[in-house]
Amino acid sequence: MAIADDPFIFEACEPLIRGGKRLRPMLFIMCANSKVDCPPEKTMPLATALELIHTASLVHDDIIDTSKKRRGVETANSKYGAQIAVLVGDYLFAKAFQLVAENNYSSEVQMILSKLVKNLCVGEIMQDRSLFEVPTLNEYYTRINLKTAIFLSSCCRLGAGVAEMDRREVDNLTAYGSGLGLAFQIIDDLLDFFGDEKITGKPHGGDLKSGVITLPVIRALEISDEASTLRKIVTTGGNVDAAIKIIQATDAVDYCRTRAEAHIESARINLPLTLKTSVALALEQVADFIVDRTR
Amino acid sequence: MAIADDPFIFEACEPLIRGGKRLRPMLFIMCANSKVDCPPEKTMPLATALELIHTASLVHDDIIDTSKKRRGVETANSKYGAQIAVLVGDYLFAKAFQLVAENNYSSEVQMILSKLVKNLCVGEIMQDRSLFEVPTLNEYYTRINLKTAIFLSSCCRLGAGVAEMDRREVDNLTAYGSGLGLAFQIIDDLLDFFGDEKITGKPHGGDLKSGVITLPVIRALEISDEASTLRKIVTTGGNVDAAIKIIQATDAVDYCRTRAEAHIESARINLPLTLKTSVALALEQVADFIVDRTR
Repeated sequence: MAIADDPFIFEACEPLIRGGKRLRPMLFIMCANSKVDCPPEKTMPLATALELIHTASLVHDDIIDTSKKRRGVETANSKYGAQIAVLVGDYLFAKAFQLVAENNYSSEVQMILSKLVKNLCVGEIMQDRSLFEVPTLNEYYTRINLKTAIFLSSCCRLGAGVAEMDRREVDNLTAYGSGLGLAFQIIDDLLDFFGDEKITGKPHGGDLKSGVITLPVIRALEISDEASTLRKIVTTGGNVDAAIKIIQATDAVDYCRTRAEAHIESARINLPLTLKTSVALALEQVADFIVDRTR
Repeated sequence: MAIADDPFIFEACEPLIRGGKRLRPMLFIMCANSKVDCPPEKTMPLATALELIHTASLVHDDIIDTSKKRRGVETANSKYGAQIAVLVGDYLFAKAFQLVAENNYSSEVQMILSKLVKNLCVGEIMQDRSLFEVPTLNEYYTRINLKTAIFLSSCCRLGAGVAEMDRREVDNLTAYGSGLGLAFQIIDDLLDFFGDEKITGKPHGGDLKSGVITLPVIRALEISDEASTLRKIVTTGGNVDAAIKIIQATDAVDYCRTRAEAHIESARINLPLTLKTSVALALEQVADFIVDRTR
């Protein structure tokens, strides 16, 4: 199946779609295979739709953040301008909904997808309207829940639905996805400061430069002797390297890792005991990957 | 029903949603009532979804065209910036698909909607990638078909579907919508030059300024003595008033009206004879409105 019937749109999003960890479709497919082997024709269209929605949101995010690089390649925004990037993202969203409609998934599936897109938007808007403002811990969690945790938990919920699990199992797998998502975003926010640019494919300190204040900063502001200097940097978009030094002199990295690990533990204990062994193991491995990952 | 659960998104799109002609939901509802009276609960959610999709596309268009005003009010792009406008548009698209999913419309409905959004995007991309280039008549028609005619014909097709019309009637109502759409866009392109700014709610010559070359220009270039001056203006984004004078000295306005009227006639002859009289009359009136409209 081609990503896009339109050759230009294909060209514009192909490099982006080629990369990526495929975390969302992978989670969905694993959960769909939780009980018995699920035929690919039942999973592939929705798995593709999930990755397309994620890609569309990245294309639009890159307009918002005016990012130059993503997944190691030039962003659509940088290459073709914001105008085209808006439309390429819209196209990918529409293509995702078309895939779901064409393959006769239930209207509950459509509903989960549309709500998840709405939540992504609300989370991003929340972020965009408070750039260069230090969020409370609570505000930070609300945002990463809307932006990431709901998406990953929806992938698990959709998979559990396809696997026809019972209500309790569906809720548990959803909770697994939610813990995974919180941890994933916290690690993502750490990698933005301390990740290897060559591995992450994104330039360093991008969040800070664009005014997005994340957990390492929130923690460092709480305990650093140089909190007032750091506050000045992060609320005015100042020197990223100076900010990183201040953060590194605190326990912020450990603190973030500890929180991420806590969410991973909560994900793990929510895994239903009724899963096929191979799937249970794979979902455990995903949880390990989330905290150990370098990209 | 609230447009958006999120208070900020509600605030951002409410002025835009308050205005507008409601052409798309109106066409859908009329067609849905073609045979027997259709209960509002069968039409309202999808009618709302159609208007939301249209509104979302306008919000994104205004980023693309960097328009300041739309429907007489400040655009989301101008008021909140491109970043927020991207997300508000995405939210509205998602809300539309949610409404359809929640109200158990068929997957065919979802498919028609997602394809129509894809076509909107392809049409807009086509337009955006050829700014300041003079399209052939054929290219112009391809673009207005993707941008407008397919949308209006989809509204009619969806209505005919809800009315459970037979295949031939559905095709005829679709053809009616298509003719209507072509005429609508041609008149829209005329109004952009010669409309009353107070009535259209949009500043004059906006298309030309942003490099979108439409039928009045295509015609004037074909027959004007000052074609080379006009070509220079439109391919470089020069003086709109000078361009308007050159266009007005030709038969371009009449030519566009004649073409629009031809499409309206084709719309009219496609109206199935089996419609309820009241609906047939109403759809004739819509056709009249399209060519006579001032906004």
